[in-house]
Amino acid sequence: MQAQDMLETVCKTVLEKITPKPEERRKIEDLARRLEKSVTEAAERFGVKATVRLEGSVAKDTWLSGEPDIDIFMRLPRSIPRSTLGEVALKIARKATEGAQQVERFAEHPYLEAFVEGVRVNIVPCYETKPGEWLSATDRTPYHTDYVKKRLKPRMRDEVRLLKKFMKGVGVYGAEIKVGGFSGYLCELLIIHYGSFLNVLKAFAQHEQRTVIDIENHYKGRKDELPLLFNEPLVIIDPVDMGRNVASAVQSQKLYTFVAAARAFLENPSLKFFYPPETKPLTIKNLNETLRNRGSALVFIVFGMVEAVPDVLWGQLYKSQRSLAKLLETNDFTMLRCAAWSNEENLNVLLFELESRHLPHVKKHLGPPLEKIVDCERFLAKHATNPETVSGPYIEDGRWVVEVKRKYTDAVSLLNEKLKDGGRSTGVAKDIAKTLSKGFKIYVNEEIAEIYSRNSEFAKFLTDFLHGKPKWLENAVKTG
Amino acid sequence: MQAQDMLETVCKTVLEKITPKPEERRKIEDLARRLEKSVTEAAERFGVKATVRLEGSVAKDTWLSGEPDIDIFMRLPRSIPRSTLGEVALKIARKATEGAQQVERFAEHPYLEAFVEGVRVNIVPCYETKPGEWLSATDRTPYHTDYVKKRLKPRMRDEVRLLKKFMKGVGVYGAEIKVGGFSGYLCELLIIHYGSFLNVLKAFAQHEQRTVIDIENHYKGRKDELPLLFNEPLVIIDPVDMGRNVASAVQSQKLYTFVAAARAFLENPSLKFFYPPETKPLTIKNLNETLRNRGSALVFIVFGMVEAVPDVLWGQLYKSQRSLAKLLETNDFTMLRCAAWSNEENLNVLLFELESRHLPHVKKHLGPPLEKIVDCERFLAKHATNPETVSGPYIEDGRWVVEVKRKYTDAVSLLNEKLKDGGRSTGVAKDIAKTLSKGFKIYVNEEIAEIYSRNSEFAKFLTDFLHGKPKWLENAVKTG
Repeated sequence: MQAQDMLETVCKTVLEKITPKPEERRKIEDLARRLEKSVTEAAERFGVKATVRLEGSVAKDTWLSGEPDIDIFMRLPRSIPRSTLGEVALKIARKATEGAQQVERFAEHPYLEAFVEGVRVNIVPCYETKPGEWLSATDRTPYHTDYVKKRLKPRMRDEVRLLKKFMKGVGVYGAEIKVGGFSGYLCELLIIHYGSFLNVLKAFAQHEQRTVIDIENHYKGRKDELPLLFNEPLVIIDPVDMGRNVASAVQSQKLYTFVAAARAFLENPSLKFFYPPETKPLTIKNLNETLRNRGSALVFIVFGMVEAVPDVLWGQLYKSQRSLAKLLETNDFTMLRCAAWSNEENLNVLLFELESRHLPHVKKHLGPPLEKIVDCERFLAKHATNPETVSGPYIEDGRWVVEVKRKYTDAVSLLNEKLKDGGRSTGVAKDIAKTLSKGFKIYVNEEIAEIYSRNSEFAKFLTDFLHGKPKWLENAVKTG
Repeated sequence: MQAQDMLETVCKTVLEKITPKPEERRKIEDLARRLEKSVTEAAERFGVKATVRLEGSVAKDTWLSGEPDIDIFMRLPRSIPRSTLGEVALKIARKATEGAQQVERFAEHPYLEAFVEGVRVNIVPCYETKPGEWLSATDRTPYHTDYVKKRLKPRMRDEVRLLKKFMKGVGVYGAEIKVGGFSGYLCELLIIHYGSFLNVLKAFAQHEQRTVIDIENHYKGRKDELPLLFNEPLVIIDPVDMGRNVASAVQSQKLYTFVAAARAFLENPSLKFFYPPETKPLTIKNLNETLRNRGSALVFIVFGMVEAVPDVLWGQLYKSQRSLAKLLETNDFTMLRCAAWSNEENLNVLLFELESRHLPHVKKHLGPPLEKIVDCERFLAKHATNPETVSGPYIEDGRWVVEVKRKYTDAVSLLNEKLKDGGRSTGVAKDIAKTLSKGFKIYVNEEIAEIYSRNSEFAKFLTDFLHGKPKWLENAVKTG
């Protein structure tokens, strides 16, 4: 089959699965209307003047069959102070979904996640504001809904669905910190701009350095200013707020993954991009064999519950991961990769794969060039009679050099020492430092079997990590 | 004592030792005259028209007591072809020093080194040429002698002697390839230019980036051209040949060592700079302890006789050392230092001190950035299904990356494999490759005791190497 035919066949097959059927659509839309009503009534009951409206993908009809998320927004008067906004909203939301399973969530302010008739419902407060007078980030949402409903032609809704499903499949969908990917609204804007799923892929397959999109031409005649105003590699000016880049939270890793996946898909279309195969964890025997074979050192820092909502938790995990990676690299350990994993409850893991757990004892320490006379004097005064000096000072390539003992030659000792008080001084994030200071455990290579064998989600994560290659890359590459 | 007084005292003490006493001077000058005569007679006997004359430090009265070198030059007619110049000269020289110990040497062409009445005598051929019409490098020598005799005031001869002795003491004297330092003529020019030993030191203590000296003002009004014509950090235009940098063979390592030693001496004058203490080799027990303590890997490549005169041998040793250092570094071994040693007879050693003999098995291999679409396709085609790929390809910092097995994880295996045919393809110099192809042995750390215990000169070399610090640096540094 030709690639073009194959593309069409794949997209058609996917669309059939992801477009809500009339019955499912009726059920969800009916539930949404009932929820609008019960939130409105609950607000009234508490004497709060609220404009309640369905927002999000169900309102815009860009949701995926089997994965509906009903977003009910309460637009509240600006007279309610920010400090009590969440409290007021939660009270109303709890009342409106009485009897359902409820979880308090937190983005910019608290909101309620409830499971009603098996469907995830988010009841979110925001302020009733005019464009440009935003008081909180969610104030824009109703305007986003209006904009998309106005601009997205009916046939383009399926294109949005395809794009979302593709992005989910290749792991770049979701604006939450854990993912750092593309939001639903961003997908809709991309379809509005490029017209179709395939056009989006074709455009991103060609992405170089920067892509800047200004659908509403807010910067007409001032395009040159854009690179100064926004420095992200992907800039999509928000049609309802010219000062905002809708893609500002897209991590470059996710952007590049999307670019590479788009290329691979256009080259070699397959359902795999939308429906990646489930990871089968390695058996313990295979795990140990794999670890032995690679000969590197996987160092796992394992710790318990962190008191933080998911977005905060993941932000802190990534920050701590970066800080500790830097600590290890500053101490000359060669990093292959690092990663973070969490069940968002009682088990958190920071993983650093090093070329080697141990380093040689001696290292070269470069001093100043001979030209810097005063620096040289200082360097010689410090090192010429220092017992830490193994050789030298001697001159090499026009500068003074000494060989000194390394302070840390074992990555595990380094981490144990730096983390014993939580590791704040090395850049570990606050709530994680709090947990670490109460205790943590470091595992190296096959020692992790203890955790691996007890937790299948972690086992999948580690299996994928060891494999390294994106699933969509399997057989997707011409090796001619 | 004030530093200034100390400087004077040290210089005076040294001068007393190195200025030839009348008796020694008489003896050497008498011997030189007799040698001039016998070389002249030998030339006549063979029917060769030669202008024979004493050159070098004895002619210029800049030689050091106890270390005279008598250079007798034969200026031969330009009608003698270069190919037979050496042969003719050797024949005459052998006849002229009949009965003395004789060694054939080679610089640009062969010359004879003879030991006559306990004094080293060099009998060197050159062409009788006018300035600018040089046929061989040694043709300039008589002009150098004339120039220095004319320009060097009597009191400045002692200054030359001090400078030479200082340079010998800190290991930067000698234009031969082994040293790559300052020639006697260069010392004389420096004194002519700066006026005194201390002025030379003061000037070089301030050396930054480049020092350019044009005593005869050959480039008057064209000084700007000098940096384009000569790119060495030290440029001393030859008074008798404006196209030549007398310092072109001074290795930057030697220049910088001189700069650093000059500073240290001016700061803290001491006889040690002129008379460095003899190295006392470590005992085998101390050697082993030192090696164990540093924990690095000293890898010695030991081989026998190389068929080459010293200048060629050292040139090849250094070239081979550089090539093999590059080979090791290209294969990810971290070099601390390297060095070459030779007894110029049957024992040669290339020494590489590595942080570690062994490397981890896996390493990261960075592929092209996502922007380079064709390169990415090629990279993925090569690595996605390659059995050498341990993890990935995955995307990191906007580029494809794979983790692969290292080809060599043991420096000794790498060297053994690359050198088994002599190592020409890795850049080992020709005559050394010839020797290596017949056999060599690699020793690591304490294994070298086998050689160390049998050869005291090598033992001194290795002791100094491990110490690293120049002898003049001991106690020469203010550690306040």
